[in-house]
Amino acid sequence: MGLPPEFHDIAKRVNNWGRWGAEDEIGTLNLITDEVVKGAAAEVRSGRRIPLALDLQDNGVQTGMIPGRVNPMHTMVMLNFEMFGPGTVATSDDAVTMGLQCATHWDALTHVSHSGKIYNGRPADSITAHGGSAYSGIEKARHVVSRGVLLDVAAAKGLDRLPGDHAVTPEDLAEAEEFGKVKVRAGDVVLVRTGQMQLYLQSDKHGYATPSPGLSIRTPEWFHARDVAAVANDTMVFEIFPPEIENLWLGVHGLHLVEMGMMQGQNWNLEELSTACAQEQRYAFLLSAMPEPFVGGTGTPVAPVAIL
Amino acid sequence: MGLPPEFHDIAKRVNNWGRWGAEDEIGTLNLITDEVVKGAAAEVRSGRRIPLALDLQDNGVQTGMIPGRVNPMHTMVMLNFEMFGPGTVATSDDAVTMGLQCATHWDALTHVSHSGKIYNGRPADSITAHGGSAYSGIEKARHVVSRGVLLDVAAAKGLDRLPGDHAVTPEDLAEAEEFGKVKVRAGDVVLVRTGQMQLYLQSDKHGYATPSPGLSIRTPEWFHARDVAAVANDTMVFEIFPPEIENLWLGVHGLHLVEMGMMQGQNWNLEELSTACAQEQRYAFLLSAMPEPFVGGTGTPVAPVAIL
Amino acid sequence: MGLPPEFHDIAKRVNNWGRWGAEDEIGTLNLITDEVVKGAAAEVRSGRRIPLALDLQDNGVQTGMIPGRVNPMHTMVMLNFEMFGPGTVATSDDAVTMGLQCATHWDALTHVSHSGKIYNGRPADSITAHGGSAYSGIEKARHVVSRGVLLDVAAAKGLDRLPGDHAVTPEDLAEAEEFGKVKVRAGDVVLVRTGQMQLYLQSDKHGYATPSPGLSIRTPEWFHARDVAAVANDTMVFEIFPPEIENLWLGVHGLHLVEMGMMQGQNWNLEELSTACAQEQRYAFLLSAMPEPFVGGTGTPVAPVAIL
Amino acid sequence: MGLPPEFHDIAKRVNNWGRWGAEDEIGTLNLITDEVVKGAAAEVRSGRRIPLALDLQDNGVQTGMIPGRVNPMHTMVMLNFEMFGPGTVATSDDAVTMGLQCATHWDALTHVSHSGKIYNGRPADSITAHGGSAYSGIEKARHVVSRGVLLDVAAAKGLDRLPGDHAVTPEDLAEAEEFGKVKVRAGDVVLVRTGQMQLYLQSDKHGYATPSPGLSIRTPEWFHARDVAAVANDTMVFEIFPPEIENLWLGVHGLHLVEMGMMQGQNWNLEELSTACAQEQRYAFLLSAMPEPFVGGTGTPVAPVAIL
Repeated sequence: MGLPPEFHDIAKRVNNWGRWGAEDEIGTLNLITDEVVKGAAAEVRSGRRIPLALDLQDNGVQTGMIPGRVNPMHTMVMLNFEMFGPGTVATSDDAVTMGLQCATHWDALTHVSHSGKIYNGRPADSITAHGGSAYSGIEKARHVVSRGVLLDVAAAKGLDRLPGDHAVTPEDLAEAEEFGKVKVRAGDVVLVRTGQMQLYLQSDKHGYATPSPGLSIRTPEWFHARDVAAVANDTMVFEIFPPEIENLWLGVHGLHLVEMGMMQGQNWNLEELSTACAQEQRYAFLLSAMPEPFVGGTGTPVAPVAIL
Repeated sequence: MGLPPEFHDIAKRVNNWGRWGAEDEIGTLNLITDEVVKGAAAEVRSGRRIPLALDLQDNGVQTGMIPGRVNPMHTMVMLNFEMFGPGTVATSDDAVTMGLQCATHWDALTHVSHSGKIYNGRPADSITAHGGSAYSGIEKARHVVSRGVLLDVAAAKGLDRLPGDHAVTPEDLAEAEEFGKVKVRAGDVVLVRTGQMQLYLQSDKHGYATPSPGLSIRTPEWFHARDVAAVANDTMVFEIFPPEIENLWLGVHGLHLVEMGMMQGQNWNLEELSTACAQEQRYAFLLSAMPEPFVGGTGTPVAPVAIL
Repeated sequence: MGLPPEFHDIAKRVNNWGRWGAEDEIGTLNLITDEVVKGAAAEVRSGRRIPLALDLQDNGVQTGMIPGRVNPMHTMVMLNFEMFGPGTVATSDDAVTMGLQCATHWDALTHVSHSGKIYNGRPADSITAHGGSAYSGIEKARHVVSRGVLLDVAAAKGLDRLPGDHAVTPEDLAEAEEFGKVKVRAGDVVLVRTGQMQLYLQSDKHGYATPSPGLSIRTPEWFHARDVAAVANDTMVFEIFPPEIENLWLGVHGLHLVEMGMMQGQNWNLEELSTACAQEQRYAFLLSAMPEPFVGGTGTPVAPVAIL
Repeated sequence: MGLPPEFHDIAKRVNNWGRWGAEDEIGTLNLITDEVVKGAAAEVRSGRRIPLALDLQDNGVQTGMIPGRVNPMHTMVMLNFEMFGPGTVATSDDAVTMGLQCATHWDALTHVSHSGKIYNGRPADSITAHGGSAYSGIEKARHVVSRGVLLDVAAAKGLDRLPGDHAVTPEDLAEAEEFGKVKVRAGDVVLVRTGQMQLYLQSDKHGYATPSPGLSIRTPEWFHARDVAAVANDTMVFEIFPPEIENLWLGVHGLHLVEMGMMQGQNWNLEELSTACAQEQRYAFLLSAMPEPFVGGTGTPVAPVAIL
């Protein structure tokens, strides 16, 4: 069935293959220069820190809908174990099994492919079961610290959360910029809040998953025009789901990850940040969102923090 | 056999139980105030970012010496899977099983107990197999961003790395302060470099593990006097191993985690940071080292970043 | 709250501690002598083999009701990997993470304790997080082959399956013996069919789990009188659930595993066997149900087979 | 580089594609008829049971040589947990992560492919990361009970174990038949003992792995001529390793699994069985070796038992 012409048209306009050389594996992260980071640090005014990760637990956001994407299973391998003899200092150790995309996470550029290709035109089959991503694995994304900007689309519209069938458009993003008195610029990491996370926080896991508001297929061009470094939001699928265009599944994924080489984040909890930004009347901050460097990983859990 | 009198003597002097109230679960992290963070952000001069995590891979630092502490096993659960039909955007998903203390990590305050107690005098058996840590689980440590200070003990002595039997003393720490023209102050996260990590990076995993330089039982008082918020280093066991005092195993763990309520980090890669600090002639920076919030976790992998 | 007097009364009557010596770790498996097995092999008439295990898959019987007891997560670690060069024989390897009690399984004698004790009067805290069961781990149960007897309680009553609130009584077991023209004898492994498994097979996982028919607290004495070696059935909890006596949770587990030292099996699929026994008009057969020898395991998946 | 002509010549002679129809997924297991099983049960004389699985433990046979094939990691998810209140029956539950081929195991027919094909001419890419084997997954092999025959090649030669460079030939197998006064016949499961397992049992894990005696590329024709149903032995790689013919890696795997559709077993502990057969002077018995039915699995741990 393939991908519709709309997809290929946009793809041509946002494509970044070769922009940072044929050897490049990190795409738009190249836009985060030391200068950008210096400027980002200058945004820190109060020193207030807002963590953006959901708790990692077996009662996480996964519902079993996506096969193999399991919530973290936490187990103990030692429990107050006096390894060195009775009465000595005792240790407790734990282990976990989890899907790398199960909770608050970054998609690596290799998380999706289309037409047999991944970012920078490499073959999709360079991803293998025995090594994961040979190129653009998540361990290559080593410096994810930049200016963060919250585009609080729900708050800009005076809503707690967007309806499940709302595709976030470029116009919505511009409206949120205005609401936050902030301008997105090159190297920024943009956080788009829909408010959908409230459903999970209220224990409605199935309602959280779908139907869900999310980014429209028209937004990649907006991010491309502004040279955004990465984007994250507070939904399971990132883009509106089910999709706005029939038979165009995961189109935004295909444009961001494959064409632009721009990482996406999902299941980020932006509720506390929304409150803090409203209180401080500032929507830009220093953001640290370092991937766990799983070699060959097509994604990773992340514990981002906004420093206001 | 129990713990020797030396241990109990120091324990009395560094104990923080009740200092932040009977309900407190985070100990010295309380010392990282918004003011401290504001000051830390002001340390950013160049915008240069140095990641401090080792790659997560099956060929990690674990050698099998510590039972159950397994290196990350990375597996694929989808591989260019066209979930929505032929020719559509295809997804790759992965999963991992790993020990939470296997790689670059934070110990939660519950990672060790002694005399049946954990931090703040709570019973050690509040840690269980079905829920992990009921108190002071790693998910409680939600704001680990502060000023970081590198005490480059090896470089201060003009060595590539300290010998395997070198216990890092308070005098060594003071010498490294002088070398770095930096003063440790309240709320800092102190990174102590021994150079031991070079052995792992040169593929000598067994040599890296033991014998290993590490902190002396005399250092907790030094950190306590300065109200340090957390400490990390570049070794497997953190403290000198085998121990400097016969039959005093994991004494520094017992003092830091149980008595002081101060988190420890291990297996941090401080090599690139050592070079960068020497180049920039600055040993203080903004450090972000957010735990992955595993509910009840007695530790967590962490991907710290120093922002110079 | 403790255990009610009824429990302790029965416990005294069925207790086997010391019966096979103070060192014994396998309890009623001692009753399976070579003579018993020889007799069991003589039951084979047609050579027909009926497997009794459910498929191991992520869509297994677990619903998340029991924390940590996860369905099998199957992942690939190699996929047609030409390890020795292009055009050579390619290998595919897989890995699994699963709860040992998640599917068709045996409970080891250590799966439950009461009053601080496990089978043969050993302390419950001999089970640890770093080694599992020091005594009576599932790897000790090395010879589980014997005569199997199907007591088809549902069929004996002319029912497809017993109602969810039906506690299987000694009278029901005797009725099923008569129905099957078979007498339970020393060393037998008894399979009790309720028909409850049909709910799972019809995709009603929650209905399968609870409410569920299962064995009454009165049945352990019946098995004890006949010197049965082990018992299994086709339900999640084995005993009637919720329990027949208020506040007597897992009483049958306590009597079988702790007092008698008799292994229990759960989630066995007895549907095909029920049909086969009815067709052949024989309810005794050779049963092989070897535990996977997980060292220290408190349970194990098992792939039993009835050979008619 | 491809496979040498020798391989393709033998492949033509032993190929079973289509023999049991185009839809067949189980290959030579079709040769185990009810009649064969009836005859196998008649081999039981003493009722003695010999288990053939190695203990499942983190100190298992894997050395890290084969990436991703991890020894079982056993963890606790509940430990004497009084789920229903203080003083009630307490439960202990465990979980495991393991490679399906890490210990005593069966290879499914899909464990290897060559020239893009698996058994019965199906495409190798019918094995996927999200579902494993679409055809011939290990869950299809549901009735693995038959006559077992021990060909004790080492004992027939008067050796404790074969040298590491010994390729077991058809002549060796015939010699072992004579030694055991037994004739291999249609539907048998043949166990070939080299004695190599002694190295692992003596804690020489690396010596066990390689160099290792194992089956010669000439043996598949011998098994084919006798219509053997399945074969297992007491080595890591099954076939001689390193291989006897330069650049013919895993040739026996390719012939057995892909061409003949015959399952192989590896890491079977045949030491106790060797002793028992010598004592009883009988080398045929009833063998039960039921796969754990992992859906789509390319292999499975197995706990086989020989019943003499």
